[in-house]
Amino acid sequence: MSKSDSTSAVGESGPVEDAGVVRGKPVVPGVVFAPATWVTARPELPEPTATVAEDQRDAEYEAFTEAVDTVAGRLTERAEQVEGHARQVLEATVVIARDRAWAKKVKKSVAAGQTNLYAVRQATDFFIDMFLKAGGVMAERVTDLADVRDRVIAELRGEPEPGIPQVTSPHVLLADDLAPADTATLDPSLIVAVVTEKGGATSHTAIIARQLDIPCVVATGRSLRNLSDGEQLLVDGGEGTVEPGVDPQDAARRVAEAAEYADKVRSWRGPAQTSDGQRVQLLANVQDGATAEQAAASVAEGIGLFRTELCFLSETEEPTVEQQAEKYAAVFRAFPEGKVVVRTLDAGSDKPVPFVNAEDEENPALGVRGLRIARGNSELLVRQLDGIAAALKLAGRTEPSAHTWVMAPMVATVYEAKWFAGLCHERGLTAGAMIEVPAAALMAEKMMSYLDFVSIGTNDLTQYTMAADRLSSSLAYLTDPWQPAVLHLVHTTCRAGSVTRTAVGVCGEAAADPLLACVLTGLGVNSLSAATPALAAVGAQLGDVDFVTCREMAAAALNAEGAEEARAAAAAVIGR
Amino acid sequence: MSKSDSTSAVGESGPVEDAGVVRGKPVVPGVVFAPATWVTARPELPEPTATVAEDQRDAEYEAFTEAVDTVAGRLTERAEQVEGHARQVLEATVVIARDRAWAKKVKKSVAAGQTNLYAVRQATDFFIDMFLKAGGVMAERVTDLADVRDRVIAELRGEPEPGIPQVTSPHVLLADDLAPADTATLDPSLIVAVVTEKGGATSHTAIIARQLDIPCVVATGRSLRNLSDGEQLLVDGGEGTVEPGVDPQDAARRVAEAAEYADKVRSWRGPAQTSDGQRVQLLANVQDGATAEQAAASVAEGIGLFRTELCFLSETEEPTVEQQAEKYAAVFRAFPEGKVVVRTLDAGSDKPVPFVNAEDEENPALGVRGLRIARGNSELLVRQLDGIAAALKLAGRTEPSAHTWVMAPMVATVYEAKWFAGLCHERGLTAGAMIEVPAAALMAEKMMSYLDFVSIGTNDLTQYTMAADRLSSSLAYLTDPWQPAVLHLVHTTCRAGSVTRTAVGVCGEAAADPLLACVLTGLGVNSLSAATPALAAVGAQLGDVDFVTCREMAAAALNAEGAEEARAAAAAVIGR
Repeated sequence: MSKSDSTSAVGESGPVEDAGVVRGKPVVPGVVFAPATWVTARPELPEPTATVAEDQRDAEYEAFTEAVDTVAGRLTERAEQVEGHARQVLEATVVIARDRAWAKKVKKSVAAGQTNLYAVRQATDFFIDMFLKAGGVMAERVTDLADVRDRVIAELRGEPEPGIPQVTSPHVLLADDLAPADTATLDPSLIVAVVTEKGGATSHTAIIARQLDIPCVVATGRSLRNLSDGEQLLVDGGEGTVEPGVDPQDAARRVAEAAEYADKVRSWRGPAQTSDGQRVQLLANVQDGATAEQAAASVAEGIGLFRTELCFLSETEEPTVEQQAEKYAAVFRAFPEGKVVVRTLDAGSDKPVPFVNAEDEENPALGVRGLRIARGNSELLVRQLDGIAAALKLAGRTEPSAHTWVMAPMVATVYEAKWFAGLCHERGLTAGAMIEVPAAALMAEKMMSYLDFVSIGTNDLTQYTMAADRLSSSLAYLTDPWQPAVLHLVHTTCRAGSVTRTAVGVCGEAAADPLLACVLTGLGVNSLSAATPALAAVGAQLGDVDFVTCREMAAAALNAEGAEEARAAAAAVIGR
Repeated sequence: MSKSDSTSAVGESGPVEDAGVVRGKPVVPGVVFAPATWVTARPELPEPTATVAEDQRDAEYEAFTEAVDTVAGRLTERAEQVEGHARQVLEATVVIARDRAWAKKVKKSVAAGQTNLYAVRQATDFFIDMFLKAGGVMAERVTDLADVRDRVIAELRGEPEPGIPQVTSPHVLLADDLAPADTATLDPSLIVAVVTEKGGATSHTAIIARQLDIPCVVATGRSLRNLSDGEQLLVDGGEGTVEPGVDPQDAARRVAEAAEYADKVRSWRGPAQTSDGQRVQLLANVQDGATAEQAAASVAEGIGLFRTELCFLSETEEPTVEQQAEKYAAVFRAFPEGKVVVRTLDAGSDKPVPFVNAEDEENPALGVRGLRIARGNSELLVRQLDGIAAALKLAGRTEPSAHTWVMAPMVATVYEAKWFAGLCHERGLTAGAMIEVPAAALMAEKMMSYLDFVSIGTNDLTQYTMAADRLSSSLAYLTDPWQPAVLHLVHTTCRAGSVTRTAVGVCGEAAADPLLACVLTGLGVNSLSAATPALAAVGAQLGDVDFVTCREMAAAALNAEGAEEARAAAAAVIGR
């Protein structure tokens, strides 16, 4: 028996790499062609040297406080020249530079005979280590800390301040990672794209680039270092590619095409449909009245996912039915006539709610979360449904069941679906379930004899189908909604929807990917719900293809062996 | 829109309960009909009373030590009358009675003026609380502790020793839970069945009942209290039922049928096949040479799951290729001509291996485990495959590829399957994958173009398909291999096996359930691998049905809405 050829690489091998192309995580779409400029090198980190004489230690520390004053003063000055978020970021960096615990640590080392240079390094290492261990949001502050360290060290040595070089024409900025203080003063007319070796979709670089709408690619890995200052680069922020050596005429054509496409997205108004008129509802994911208002001002036709747990994350006690009704009504009011899909409390796992989740679990993502909480505490769910019903009256919704849909998270069995639907129907509410547990997709047809609609949560569905934690960066190669196994479960759910005439939506990252949106439409999905800013690009893309093409894209993706191959196969159908 | 009738119960509603039937967890099969006898009541727990005068406190403590001596002496005497495990259990109870930390705590309370009675209660509560917090195996010692407490309290009060009453004819023993000291001296000719309100499949009661082959049901819940001393009960340890009020003639017939069936299982010799000759290989799950020898002495035709990680759990350094080869060869030698399926290192999650798993993960069951470890450390896998190849030579296997199959755990993508198969084939080894990630079942057909066989791991497959931790007792209602969603994935895998002519096995708890074994056979599974003692009952059951019946049972289970309904539907096909 021997079926396979021997292979030598583990994991997914993507399409053949073009020589020299650097690939990273796409963060802000947009195509630009400009010369590269690296951020001014960070100073070399000081090594321990001979002990400072006791009578010079006070002066040594004083030099440190002066350097901090200069650096903080310069940042404060820059903060005063800008507004809004950029200002906040610069001010936050000043706060770090002036941190007393940090200065105290430096002071202690200097008092013990260290140079101020090495003391700064040591003190910063101590806090970086602490922040990394804390993980999450804290770990993201590491860049800020290192930035302050480098500015102070450069100042102490009389070297030029590290950071973005002063350019006078448009450039692509390359960096290991950007400090918030750098990104805060980015001038989008001079820095037309940002590419970083490190960082993630939620790093400061990414957040600021999004805010300034500067095309951005992060997490390229070390291959970025092959690119040099002055080299002409074609950056595609939507694809996550950085190409050197592109013929300038080709580059100009691609930039123009991208600009045209961006214009098209900007001017797209909806409603969404394929070029031959197959309608797909575009809905927004929201969490409260404010985000619902933003959605109402956009191309969104309604709300496809109202995450009620985000109203409760900071509450230590359960809000009353009346308090809940107020919060929900604020969302209903944003779309007086539109569809609003409310998801009941999805507490647990990475979103613990203080008054609900108590027990420590070995694997919280596989634990008592979502609807499972109602098994031991059905009153909590009943009060929430009563709150939703009361909110409808508050918001003056006349025909609730047509537009107000309520769904439960983490439904795994037909019995759960039936029970939840019963509770909703008793209150005149349209009942649905999230399809995010593989079992729910596999049993969708039977569930649909009790449910009025379903909505596929691709993030969790991918996590469980691939048995890979969606928050684990080492398993990101598995948790990709393009995985054909996930698409098969979407397909199974859509077939069940077609047989039973039940609406099937998708909410989750997958719905925000224009190419994947075509595949989902081809599989038979009726509505797509994503973050408001992502909707226009999805709508514009759908308008470019006909329904038969969507089906061909779906078939090509389903037939692939892996996620990258699925994406490439779908793209190939429309000549990309 | 309103599809569902309103229902009022959450979770899965089972078949209609027969009036008066008590249901629990089946532990030891066997059907008996005999009068009930409750264990002698535990003494009432003492309440705090007036302070003991200071000059009487020494005497108060001395009375305690005397009572402990009496109780421990009585247990020691009983220990000397028995052998083996029973003796060990009694001796362990003596150790608890003589525990110095416990006595010290009693002494301290008595010195402070408590009665020795209340001091015993307090000290025991303290340790029970500590054990419960520790959980797991420690929590199971709680029964032992409470037992010692009750014996000492009864002794201090001059009351009869609590425990199993002296009966002179066969009885069914009913209890809240049994103390090891009680179960150790059970006489199977007088206590013909044991039923407990509490306990679990790994409690002392269960372990001893298994050892003595006394039909046993545990975890019935409070409904057991409806049954009284002297009441005639029909206990079915295989079904987990306890029925009062059965007509004696009916009862006698059912007892006889069960005895006949037990004889049939005992005398069953294999090889396994349906009544019309459809062959199913029965294989054993083993972990080392010793368990492989046990399997070789049984009806097992070979080894369906050799868990290599259990050879390594206690190692702090990776064994060399030669050391590994020695361990593996011991297993191969047990079946010189038989099939042996070796699973490569399945480290991670609940089986961390010291030299492999370091990082703390948020959700270890969804983390870097099984084959995923090889992504960052392929040399570890390569050395293991080399060790397996070397073991074949050591064991003198002449035609390795025909009988020696090697499979990887936690395969999630086609790329992983292809890569692993390449490494195996380079070494002349037959290559397979565990199907335990839902994606693997969904992509089975594509994987099979690279693999020579697959084996479905129903425990993990159920965990991921239902998104419910298999070790969480609060989610046990979800993690049942009878869940139709899980059976659908087995079905998908078997269809792929049929199309590509690839062998499909099942290893995991599902293969040990005779009824489910029929369903799996009907779905197209070619081999079943389970713990050695479970195999004969599976083989005997398969011999009782023809293949068409297996397929009908499979279809009935697949069509069910939930796990209990699936089991009932499959049973109904064969008139159970």
